[in-house]
Amino acid sequence: MKAEIIAVGTELLLGDIVNTNAQYLAKELAQLGITVHYQSVVGDNPARLTECVKQAKSRSDILLFSGGLGPTEDDLTKETVAAAFGDTLVFDAAQMEKIESFFKRTGRPMAPNNRKQAMIPAHGKKIENDNGTAPGVIFADGTQYAILMPGPPKELKPMFEARVKPFLKSLCGGAIVSISMREFGIGESHLETIVKPFLDDTNPTTALYAKDGEVLLRITAKAESTLQAQSICAARADEVQAALGAFYYGRDVDGLEEVVVPLLAQKQLQIATAESCTGGLLSSRITNVSGASSVFSFGCCTYANIAKEKAIGVSHATLQQFGAVSSQTAGEMAAGVAKAASAHIGVGITGIAGPTGGTPEKPVGLVYIGVYYNQKVYIKKITEGERGRAHVRWMATQNALDMVRRLLQGLPCAEDVQIFCAGEPADINRHTKSSI
Amino acid sequence: MKAEIIAVGTELLLGDIVNTNAQYLAKELAQLGITVHYQSVVGDNPARLTECVKQAKSRSDILLFSGGLGPTEDDLTKETVAAAFGDTLVFDAAQMEKIESFFKRTGRPMAPNNRKQAMIPAHGKKIENDNGTAPGVIFADGTQYAILMPGPPKELKPMFEARVKPFLKSLCGGAIVSISMREFGIGESHLETIVKPFLDDTNPTTALYAKDGEVLLRITAKAESTLQAQSICAARADEVQAALGAFYYGRDVDGLEEVVVPLLAQKQLQIATAESCTGGLLSSRITNVSGASSVFSFGCCTYANIAKEKAIGVSHATLQQFGAVSSQTAGEMAAGVAKAASAHIGVGITGIAGPTGGTPEKPVGLVYIGVYYNQKVYIKKITEGERGRAHVRWMATQNALDMVRRLLQGLPCAEDVQIFCAGEPADINRHTKSSI
Repeated sequence: MKAEIIAVGTELLLGDIVNTNAQYLAKELAQLGITVHYQSVVGDNPARLTECVKQAKSRSDILLFSGGLGPTEDDLTKETVAAAFGDTLVFDAAQMEKIESFFKRTGRPMAPNNRKQAMIPAHGKKIENDNGTAPGVIFADGTQYAILMPGPPKELKPMFEARVKPFLKSLCGGAIVSISMREFGIGESHLETIVKPFLDDTNPTTALYAKDGEVLLRITAKAESTLQAQSICAARADEVQAALGAFYYGRDVDGLEEVVVPLLAQKQLQIATAESCTGGLLSSRITNVSGASSVFSFGCCTYANIAKEKAIGVSHATLQQFGAVSSQTAGEMAAGVAKAASAHIGVGITGIAGPTGGTPEKPVGLVYIGVYYNQKVYIKKITEGERGRAHVRWMATQNALDMVRRLLQGLPCAEDVQIFCAGEPADINRHTKSSI
Repeated sequence: MKAEIIAVGTELLLGDIVNTNAQYLAKELAQLGITVHYQSVVGDNPARLTECVKQAKSRSDILLFSGGLGPTEDDLTKETVAAAFGDTLVFDAAQMEKIESFFKRTGRPMAPNNRKQAMIPAHGKKIENDNGTAPGVIFADGTQYAILMPGPPKELKPMFEARVKPFLKSLCGGAIVSISMREFGIGESHLETIVKPFLDDTNPTTALYAKDGEVLLRITAKAESTLQAQSICAARADEVQAALGAFYYGRDVDGLEEVVVPLLAQKQLQIATAESCTGGLLSSRITNVSGASSVFSFGCCTYANIAKEKAIGVSHATLQQFGAVSSQTAGEMAAGVAKAASAHIGVGITGIAGPTGGTPEKPVGLVYIGVYYNQKVYIKKITEGERGRAHVRWMATQNALDMVRRLLQGLPCAEDVQIFCAGEPADINRHTKSSI
């Protein structure tokens, strides 16, 4: 079954509001196994709306509309779609009463044009609206349906959930299930070559999307029952996970911190952070996970050298000899904050976020990340170039979280990570120790 | 001139992401005086994309595309639009070099399919992408144009701003200038009543948008020259600013931190932060402003009580008697971190971000914010309710930054702020001192 989503409203065309209804409906339809081939936005203009409805009707089974059901003169969606579906509108006394009592209850005066909202299809169906005065409507033409819902999300969502979804389910039958899989440390195109064997399958499908320095894979399966769909999905996800190895980090999670915090909790380990260029972004990400308090008690943002010395005991000599942005400083920050917080794991980040402050030797985008764990210090150097302050900071926290994730999962920490014993000077250039 | 916006991407049709590009582009086009009649979303499907391009070309002068420029096989936007505009694609060695050096710089291996991104129009134009490997392109057919931009907003927005907007301006003639004005501490509807006299003017226009706990006002003027447009804009902005008073905080800035950091630098003041429920979000926002190092040297994230005592000297008795989430603790955190960092200003934030951890007395969403400055401690209590962990944390940092901003500008700190002398117990319930 093919559907398309049509949003009606000048405020969308002007960019005054974001079309979140389209995303909500698209996701819900995907869950129901209904394919959405098109989404569109048109203004409150009868000629353009008519053209749009005609075209949609020529190619789709279900037309889902949001918006245009208001009481004002330019709200013409209902009339326009009725005409395209060979239906007419009639006055519904029960609906009018509902509208009148709504205004009474909220103590607002009712304008005469609200009468327009009491018009419902002569042949189609009215859909009750529990959160506003505009009812939804369904028009039918053979096996084609137009479903009109109000624009405000707080009216549209409950209406869809309670009344439209059951109607659509009755039309399609079957179940659809998705699993999202997150990967870090691998580019979209490299990842594609690994999962290529799965990309052409139609059930389950496998799709990949680039996201803020990582890649998201989505596996989707259709079957007669939810249980069957789940099992098809899970089997494919296992195959994909095996193919991806250490790059894969989690299913149905929103980011690395959502994997790292539960891992720490499970192992009853405490983490502490010392941040320079990321300025608290790492601790902010960790503590944005509900329940972080069981694994995190202290972080610090040692922006100035003196703060690095005073708060977490980075040695003055190290700062003098190697500078604040160095593997040595990152290592001492990591070990130092772990000690200061009596934590099992310490993370130290120091770098040049830019746009200023770079030198030929230490350019903008250079960041050292140190992780202290079990008497060892792991150091990674990243070079993000001049891709913006926010990007450099984000990637530094991504790498830090991924290093911790790999250590906790007993995986190789990363290809180019150097390892030192705590207390040993962490000179990334001098040492040639092989990575784990 | 009529335009339409076409977003290409299966992830939009599946509802995996919200089409924020459409809103961004729609708003920008409205600013330029270009009318957007349609927006649409299609998948990476050549047949449907071709149909969509043909139809758009039949009714619009400018077709703006986002997405579909990736390196993978199903990214076919460029090829499809080229065909519709009678153009072909040729290999661009310079672009290939750029892509190769991008991969070299970031230390990632380049997959062969990235070569696809080095294909540019034979007759049209390449648009440089400073933030990724996919260049944008322009195809022309007489006075009709197709402009293709990459899908990720952090690539599309800077490309539009720096290269596409000037191109569109050259097509339209005349000059258009906008000023954005930011307000905090006032709701959208309240603000609307204040600026109502300006809302119906057509030149300059005044529009308002709600944003993450604040309001954005945009003034736009058209004139024959940029200088004229600037002067019309600035005059209206001054009137609006006078009407808004202390709620207004900045022009053409992205957030409160972009006003607070320069204010601190100008007054040569140092700020330090002690965060509990916000976990580093405040220091992260401050240090995301380039040049923050001149005003910020130390922040800490004292999540556990013991960390509050050890790192910034919150007294054990205070924590025992009033609890971690109290005005007293917020006050001692603010004064304590200022002392620890030898800073002029200290900010302390403590609260319950949720979703768990609330009690009837101290519900989820309750946050105390303390600001120490000039021997005084200012305390604000906010109650954000159960609107999500991220929202509570964000609003806590918004209020903290606004309190600092107002103190630095000599404005009343906020209606309900309590003031204490440093060292005095900050009991927000007992004291009835009037606010400043």
